[in-house]
Amino acid sequence: MTTRRLRDVGEHRWIAGLVRRLHDDMAASGRVLVGPGDDAAVLRASRRPLVLTVDTLVEGVHFRAGWASPRTIGRQAFRVNASDLAAMGATPVAALLALEAPGDTPVATVDGLAAGVAADARALGAALVGGNVTAGRALAVTVTLVGDAGPRLARRAGARPGDRLFVTGSFGARAAAVRSLLAGRRVRWPLAPVRVEAGRRLAAIASAMIDVSDGLLQDLGHVCRASGVAAVVDAARVPVAAGCRRVYGAAAVAHALTGGEDYELLVAVPPRRLRALAALRARLGCPLTEIGRMVAGRPAVHVPGAAWARGAGGFDHFR
Amino acid sequence: MTTRRLRDVGEHRWIAGLVRRLHDDMAASGRVLVGPGDDAAVLRASRRPLVLTVDTLVEGVHFRAGWASPRTIGRQAFRVNASDLAAMGATPVAALLALEAPGDTPVATVDGLAAGVAADARALGAALVGGNVTAGRALAVTVTLVGDAGPRLARRAGARPGDRLFVTGSFGARAAAVRSLLAGRRVRWPLAPVRVEAGRRLAAIASAMIDVSDGLLQDLGHVCRASGVAAVVDAARVPVAAGCRRVYGAAAVAHALTGGEDYELLVAVPPRRLRALAALRARLGCPLTEIGRMVAGRPAVHVPGAAWARGAGGFDHFR
Repeated sequence: MTTRRLRDVGEHRWIAGLVRRLHDDMAASGRVLVGPGDDAAVLRASRRPLVLTVDTLVEGVHFRAGWASPRTIGRQAFRVNASDLAAMGATPVAALLALEAPGDTPVATVDGLAAGVAADARALGAALVGGNVTAGRALAVTVTLVGDAGPRLARRAGARPGDRLFVTGSFGARAAAVRSLLAGRRVRWPLAPVRVEAGRRLAAIASAMIDVSDGLLQDLGHVCRASGVAAVVDAARVPVAAGCRRVYGAAAVAHALTGGEDYELLVAVPPRRLRALAALRARLGCPLTEIGRMVAGRPAVHVPGAAWARGAGGFDHFR
Repeated sequence: MTTRRLRDVGEHRWIAGLVRRLHDDMAASGRVLVGPGDDAAVLRASRRPLVLTVDTLVEGVHFRAGWASPRTIGRQAFRVNASDLAAMGATPVAALLALEAPGDTPVATVDGLAAGVAADARALGAALVGGNVTAGRALAVTVTLVGDAGPRLARRAGARPGDRLFVTGSFGARAAAVRSLLAGRRVRWPLAPVRVEAGRRLAAIASAMIDVSDGLLQDLGHVCRASGVAAVVDAARVPVAAGCRRVYGAAAVAHALTGGEDYELLVAVPPRRLRALAALRARLGCPLTEIGRMVAGRPAVHVPGAAWARGAGGFDHFR
C-alpha cells in the first residue's frame, strides 16, 4: 500500500475533506455561525470580553518525528494555547489551525494533527472553526485560540507583598521526558495538562496569575516584573513530577524549577482570600500547592538555600 | 557595525521591546482591554458576530529574501488576512502575529515584520494585540485576524443563475511580478490591495462573494461549488493589470485569470440589486468591473472562446 501524500491530494481537496469531518462539531457548538470552508469563520457575539492567543509547535524545535503521533502533537498545540487562556481565567470557544507542511507529508499526518486539535477543542466545548495549510520546509502547527473571559480576568500584574504563591499540578515531567527522548530512550512525550477549569476558578481570587511555559522561576520573574514586587520560593515545597525525580535524581528540584513546558498555573493569592481559596480547592480538578510568597523589593525571584537558582533563567528559543 | 541577531537579544527581550512600541496602538483602540505582554490579549465584547481568519507567509514559498523589505512582508501578511475578512463583509479589529525565525535572523528583520503588521492594522483602525516568536528553520509569518461582521455577511454560497459577476481592481500584477523576480529582474513585489471598505459595502447586496487568492477561475469555481451553479466569464472584460500585459503579452489574459495572489473581490449580484450597486460604486474606493454571470448547470466555470481555460486550475500549494 502506498502512502498518500499532501502533494498527491492537493491543498483544496485536503481542506474539503477536513471541512466535511468537522461538520458535526460546528452543529454542536451554539457559537459557530460559519465554520471552515468559507473565506473566514464567524462566531455569534458574546457579552463577555474576548481572549485571544496564538502559539506554534515546530518540528525539530518543539518535537521530533517519532516522538508522538500527529494526533498527540495536534492535541498539544491546542493545549499550550488553552494554557494561556486558563492563565487569564478564560475558556476556549474557537480554534484556528495554520499548518506548514512539506509536500511529501503523508495525508495521515496532517489529518492526525487536525483531528488532535479538533478533539481537544471538543472536549472543552470549543470547535476548530477554520485554518490554512501551506507548503513549508518543516512541519509547523500554529493554533490560535479565541475564548470567553470568565467573571474575573487574571493578569500578570497585581501581585502584592504578602500574597501567597500557589501552583497547580507538578513540575519537571516534560523537561525530563524530552531529555530521555533526546538520549534515544523510548518514553511517552507527555501532553500538557488542561487547567481551564482551575484557571477560571482561581482567577476569581488571584491577585496575579501566569501559566508556566518557560520554567517556574522565569515565569514567576515575569509576574514579579509586571507587579513590581519580589518573590521567595521554598524549593522544598515545589511538587516535583515522579518522572523528573527518576531522570534527574538529586538535581530534580533544580530542573523542575527551570525546565519549562509544564503548562501548570502559578497564582498569587492575597491573604484575605485564603478562605475563599480553601472553599474552591476541591473543584479545581487538580492539586494546588503553596510554594512561597510575594515580598517587597525590586522585582526578583529568591530561592533561599539554592545556589543554583541564582541567575537561573528558563527556556528562551534563541538563547 | 555588527548586526544584532535574534539569538543575541533573546525571545523575551525582543517581545518586551515590541510590547513597548505597540503601547500607543492599544491606547488608541477602544476595543483592546489587554494588549501584548500578558498570557493572552483581551478585547471588549462587541454586539456584532466575530469573523476569524489565519494565513501564513513562508520564506522560500511566498517570498524570497531580498524581494521586499521585512516591513512590506509584514504588511502583506496582514493584507492577505484582511482580504479574507473583506470577502465576508467584515472589518479587522485585532491581529495576532506568530513568527518563526532562525536564531541568526537580524533583530531588524523581525522588528520590521512586526512593524509592518502593526502599521497596516493601524491604518484600518485595528491593532496588533499579541503574538509569539519561536525558533524555526525558515522565516514564517502567521497572522490571525479578528474582525467585526458588517451589517450583512457575504458567503461563498448563495449565487443564483442570472446573477451578474463583478470584480474589484485588476488581475495578474502579482503573478507577473513574481515571474520577473524569479527571473532575476528587479521589480517591486506588489502589496495586496486593501478592499475592506469595498467588501463591507458589497456584502450588503452580494448573493455570494470570495477573495481571489488562488486565481480568478479557481476561486470562482469555489463559489460555483458552494452555490450549486455554473458561471460564464467573458475573458475580454476581465481587467488585466498593466504589469501582467507587459510580462506576458498575448498570454496576459490567461495569466490574469489563473495566476493568483490578486486579493481582489469577486462578487455575484442579483439583477434586482443592480440599481443599489450603481448607487454605491463611487464609495467602494476601487474600480468594479462586470466580467460575466452565473448560469444554471452543474458547478463549473466556462470561458467561451478560451481553449486554455478548459480544466485550468489555479494555485495549489502542493500540486
